[in-house]
Amino acid sequence: MIHFGNDYHRSAHPRVLESIAEVGGVHYGYGADELCAAAADTLRAACQAPDAEVHFMVGGTQANATIIAYHLRPWEAVISADSGHIATHETGAIEHSGHKVITLPNQLGKITAAQVRACVEEYRTSGIEEHMPEPALVYITQPTEYGTTYTRAELIDLRNVCNEYELRLFVDGARLGYALSAADVTLPDLAALVDVFTIGGTKCGALFGEAIVFPAGAPRFRHAMKQHGGLLAKGWLLGAQFSALFSTPAETAAPATLYEQICARANAQAQRIAEAFRAVGIDMLFDSPTNQQFALLTREQEDQLKEDFVCEFFGEHEDKRVVRFCTAWSTEEGDVDKLCTAVSSLK
Amino acid sequence: MIHFGNDYHRSAHPRVLESIAEVGGVHYGYGADELCAAAADTLRAACQAPDAEVHFMVGGTQANATIIAYHLRPWEAVISADSGHIATHETGAIEHSGHKVITLPNQLGKITAAQVRACVEEYRTSGIEEHMPEPALVYITQPTEYGTTYTRAELIDLRNVCNEYELRLFVDGARLGYALSAADVTLPDLAALVDVFTIGGTKCGALFGEAIVFPAGAPRFRHAMKQHGGLLAKGWLLGAQFSALFSTPAETAAPATLYEQICARANAQAQRIAEAFRAVGIDMLFDSPTNQQFALLTREQEDQLKEDFVCEFFGEHEDKRVVRFCTAWSTEEGDVDKLCTAVSSLK
Amino acid sequence: MIHFGNDYHRSAHPRVLESIAEVGGVHYGYGADELCAAAADTLRAACQAPDAEVHFMVGGTQANATIIAYHLRPWEAVISADSGHIATHETGAIEHSGHKVITLPNQLGKITAAQVRACVEEYRTSGIEEHMPEPALVYITQPTEYGTTYTRAELIDLRNVCNEYELRLFVDGARLGYALSAADVTLPDLAALVDVFTIGGTKCGALFGEAIVFPAGAPRFRHAMKQHGGLLAKGWLLGAQFSALFSTPAETAAPATLYEQICARANAQAQRIAEAFRAVGIDMLFDSPTNQQFALLTREQEDQLKEDFVCEFFGEHEDKRVVRFCTAWSTEEGDVDKLCTAVSSLK
Amino acid sequence: MIHFGNDYHRSAHPRVLESIAEVGGVHYGYGADELCAAAADTLRAACQAPDAEVHFMVGGTQANATIIAYHLRPWEAVISADSGHIATHETGAIEHSGHKVITLPNQLGKITAAQVRACVEEYRTSGIEEHMPEPALVYITQPTEYGTTYTRAELIDLRNVCNEYELRLFVDGARLGYALSAADVTLPDLAALVDVFTIGGTKCGALFGEAIVFPAGAPRFRHAMKQHGGLLAKGWLLGAQFSALFSTPAETAAPATLYEQICARANAQAQRIAEAFRAVGIDMLFDSPTNQQFALLTREQEDQLKEDFVCEFFGEHEDKRVVRFCTAWSTEEGDVDKLCTAVSSLK
Repeated sequence: MIHFGNDYHRSAHPRVLESIAEVGGVHYGYGADELCAAAADTLRAACQAPDAEVHFMVGGTQANATIIAYHLRPWEAVISADSGHIATHETGAIEHSGHKVITLPNQLGKITAAQVRACVEEYRTSGIEEHMPEPALVYITQPTEYGTTYTRAELIDLRNVCNEYELRLFVDGARLGYALSAADVTLPDLAALVDVFTIGGTKCGALFGEAIVFPAGAPRFRHAMKQHGGLLAKGWLLGAQFSALFSTPAETAAPATLYEQICARANAQAQRIAEAFRAVGIDMLFDSPTNQQFALLTREQEDQLKEDFVCEFFGEHEDKRVVRFCTAWSTEEGDVDKLCTAVSSLK
Repeated sequence: MIHFGNDYHRSAHPRVLESIAEVGGVHYGYGADELCAAAADTLRAACQAPDAEVHFMVGGTQANATIIAYHLRPWEAVISADSGHIATHETGAIEHSGHKVITLPNQLGKITAAQVRACVEEYRTSGIEEHMPEPALVYITQPTEYGTTYTRAELIDLRNVCNEYELRLFVDGARLGYALSAADVTLPDLAALVDVFTIGGTKCGALFGEAIVFPAGAPRFRHAMKQHGGLLAKGWLLGAQFSALFSTPAETAAPATLYEQICARANAQAQRIAEAFRAVGIDMLFDSPTNQQFALLTREQEDQLKEDFVCEFFGEHEDKRVVRFCTAWSTEEGDVDKLCTAVSSLK
Repeated sequence: MIHFGNDYHRSAHPRVLESIAEVGGVHYGYGADELCAAAADTLRAACQAPDAEVHFMVGGTQANATIIAYHLRPWEAVISADSGHIATHETGAIEHSGHKVITLPNQLGKITAAQVRACVEEYRTSGIEEHMPEPALVYITQPTEYGTTYTRAELIDLRNVCNEYELRLFVDGARLGYALSAADVTLPDLAALVDVFTIGGTKCGALFGEAIVFPAGAPRFRHAMKQHGGLLAKGWLLGAQFSALFSTPAETAAPATLYEQICARANAQAQRIAEAFRAVGIDMLFDSPTNQQFALLTREQEDQLKEDFVCEFFGEHEDKRVVRFCTAWSTEEGDVDKLCTAVSSLK
Repeated sequence: MIHFGNDYHRSAHPRVLESIAEVGGVHYGYGADELCAAAADTLRAACQAPDAEVHFMVGGTQANATIIAYHLRPWEAVISADSGHIATHETGAIEHSGHKVITLPNQLGKITAAQVRACVEEYRTSGIEEHMPEPALVYITQPTEYGTTYTRAELIDLRNVCNEYELRLFVDGARLGYALSAADVTLPDLAALVDVFTIGGTKCGALFGEAIVFPAGAPRFRHAMKQHGGLLAKGWLLGAQFSALFSTPAETAAPATLYEQICARANAQAQRIAEAFRAVGIDMLFDSPTNQQFALLTREQEDQLKEDFVCEFFGEHEDKRVVRFCTAWSTEEGDVDKLCTAVSSLK
């Protein structure tokens, strides 16, 4: 079987594994080490945010819960798309910290500044604010759970509405690498526009790890990390991986980091797959610019492909079945070739 | 101004006030007193549930949060209509205890057994249950926030689906009195069909207080009450009020309790109001059998009535304004007459 | 049996009951009414704190949990005497909101500025602050659970150490009335020296209720109250009671409020009881200036008194039994006479 | 500088690193993979507990918080030594889940069955149980934070008192390997005597990871893990490491696992260090059988050793300074030689 099932079902990029194997010597624990410091410097430079505070955590749910609990007072709530990871697949981790997730209907995974404004206006004009959780933080994902991306203009709109209503803005970048080459939003844009964002490692070539960037700092955030069980004892494992991912491979002409190269390559493979479907008249659920592609198949087409390929059923759409094909750092060109060939022979 | 604005904007029924004034002597605190014991006996008899455990708390949000936290393990969630009080107007009290409120679209405040089934089925067939809060408790209100009521048949359907999926069923009866004479669901029905329900006092003639009935008992519930700040030091104040409300006035022929009489009278007044509107061709938002009536008015009609009457704007409906008129134990017949007269002269 | 068992085992002072019975008319709910506004004005005047924000809640545990959750960020902790009510008898209500109670050994219910300093210094010099909850709030009771009181000088010391370490200071005045005539700390002193304090009603003549005074305001505190189930629907019941308690009875020469008079009288009764014991050579556990007196009795003495009087065993002390006698607004002089007579005949 | 500062300041045992590097292929995420299944089988065999449920988490604080939240209802509390890790160095993670940690005075890190009995008896005979958190779980560490160990007899006593009072028993084995060769408590003993225990990897040769063993199962524990942000996406990293640690190296005669060998060797090194101190008349704080040794030094002796060796000051004891020397899988014999030589020349 050839695997297009997910982007976290394989180990890490060889250079990441090397970076861990090479760590020798003695290091102070819990992330207070020179490898984390070096990785933080690298990320600050990549984000053009010299004053940013950078922390590293093992996983995305942990990072989301910690960041949200850190920002909110007890009666405050976080706004999210109803498809947002915190609203769907974190087993109530946000509520476990005491906070409501206010959900807005998503459009292909995204929410708009206008929706945020309407939500906060409804709260503010209710006349009974103290009977309702107070919207205080906006959570979005880049790319979204559907693989779509926010444009820079959309992000600026969200920033503006947050400024207007004194909300904070949090971008969950669990798959951020795939958005960097697919959207016009850069790391410096994120650092300039949001209060906190994550740079996902787990789904973008690392063994594990999420970098958390607070462009304007975050006093006592390490307290919050520890309280959430998220200060890794051998924290340098995170620093080593992010230094590897954000190194610039010597052999390449372009000055792109390994992180960007890995994800851009997976995006390109995903486009080839989408084109193969379209070439035989099969529609995609929507134009996805990143590493997740959702084809609209008949049951027969799905069964035929599943003989040789791992892919994931995502639900019904009209009279078709939505089937996801996902590429990653580990996807081989030859396997994409085989999939495209198989697609071209679908009826 | 004549008041039809709400059902908790006045003090208590005179008999309730008397019952408090009459309490003399010394009583053990925190609800472990003979007045609470007597009121609990009265309620057990009224519910035909001799083994029921009965507790008294001061307010509805407190009771809801305590009951829900008592029943759920940390990753478990409560299912509610999206219009449910716990989902809208409790400032995240349920989330403060760590639990997600899973909301289903309401139909005039109600949810159906089929909706509950679909919700749980979606969870159980997801293949990733551990990534999602586990639905474990169903919360409904009787009457609902819209003044509608569940029928006995609908309640049986909900019970059956709860049995099938091992869910528990909680009925929030903050306004239960108004439903008792408007629906075919009796107190013994509730005791037979649900795991826990409340009998609201605050909006049905008491100064304050909610009785909580667990037909099959609830070990350690007093621990949960205290942890939620809900063990009233002079707990007998609650027992005295519920004994007064569930006494059967001597002067009446019908063997109804004061609680039932108060609410039936308010319902009848509300029906008179609805008929007055219909008599001049004004539609109601829907047929409400209880003490809340929602008229569809023009702006001019609303303004005209608001010169003399307090009523509440609830939102737009098509080209009309939804305006609520609410009766209560304290509503005087003469005031209803005046409102009906005013309505009859509306254009 | 004559009752010296507690100060919350009887109903309210007649004037408080009258104030509730007299409330007529229509009032906006949830404490946003003119009776609460008037009571708040009265308390602001009594505290000489014109900018103070005043709220009313039903019970002490509820008030404590809400106040503490309001002040702390998730990893912050509250410092308390190990005998403090929040550390012993609130069923983990503070922990339920997510916060550790750091306990310091009490001296007759009290802690010192030096202890607070040592506790914070230990945290700050640990080198691993992020592994420990951060002390952020100091909780004391006035009078304490032992009936002792802080002096004004001690309170100033605590304020100074709080200023030095940027801690906030919270005084739980569940029995504050008894301290006002027993210690040199006035209401204006409290308003000048602490960040928040409560004025207890339940144990000082009210049916129920705690006033919460924030000398410098507390934005969004009503959100916190509602989230904790502590916004009483008919909130004016609290306003009416506190207005009655802080009225100045016309018939008295001294310009003391009813609240002060009730408690001063109970203190004087308690002193008579203590003197009766000392007169027959029975020691008190310590000199208590307030309404709780702890006598050191033999088992025979205890048994003899318990034939006619309700009192409470508090534990062993060396070879004696500590037995508490408690007076209240409702204690009659004749009953104190009888107790003193019985004491004088003890062997 | 030669490092005796801690047991988590170096990377992992080479065989552990190899096991990670060797993982190829595609694996289902979140611990539902064949590597975790194989490691769980290995641990079940080592514990002689064929029905045990085994899970893997990244860190100790995370595991502790998840296990404790999983077991307790909201008002229940966990009993711990006041020196227990959950009571001191987890930034209130247990309280963040809503639970009080009831602390008992430790004797060299340990608590006794008699202390547990007295604690529960005090609660049960208080007459006001509902005002107090209910003790429901006993937490101990093996070895303790001081490096001492519980004997099998002591563990049986604790089990018996837990059975008598219906408490559950949880052993935190963050450093369990060092106890296995130092105490008479085996893995099968733990499986027979406790409700849940952890087998620590991070401080015993792994990169990271704690195995959690529930001898009688733990339905829905994966829900709790996910809610606490503790389901590692590439969960096989944990399975691979524990399989490596619990493999039996071919080259050794004794049938001990790598885990046992690593820790036994570190214990032996620690004994050599203790003997070197005693040989020159320097006392140890107590006889520690495991990898942590606490020497009582003068300031001069401490300074002299700190010129070449990293060790940790732990506090004053009478007129001496307590200085900890810690060995680990990575400690080289030559470095122990050098330390012993330096000690022998101390004055």
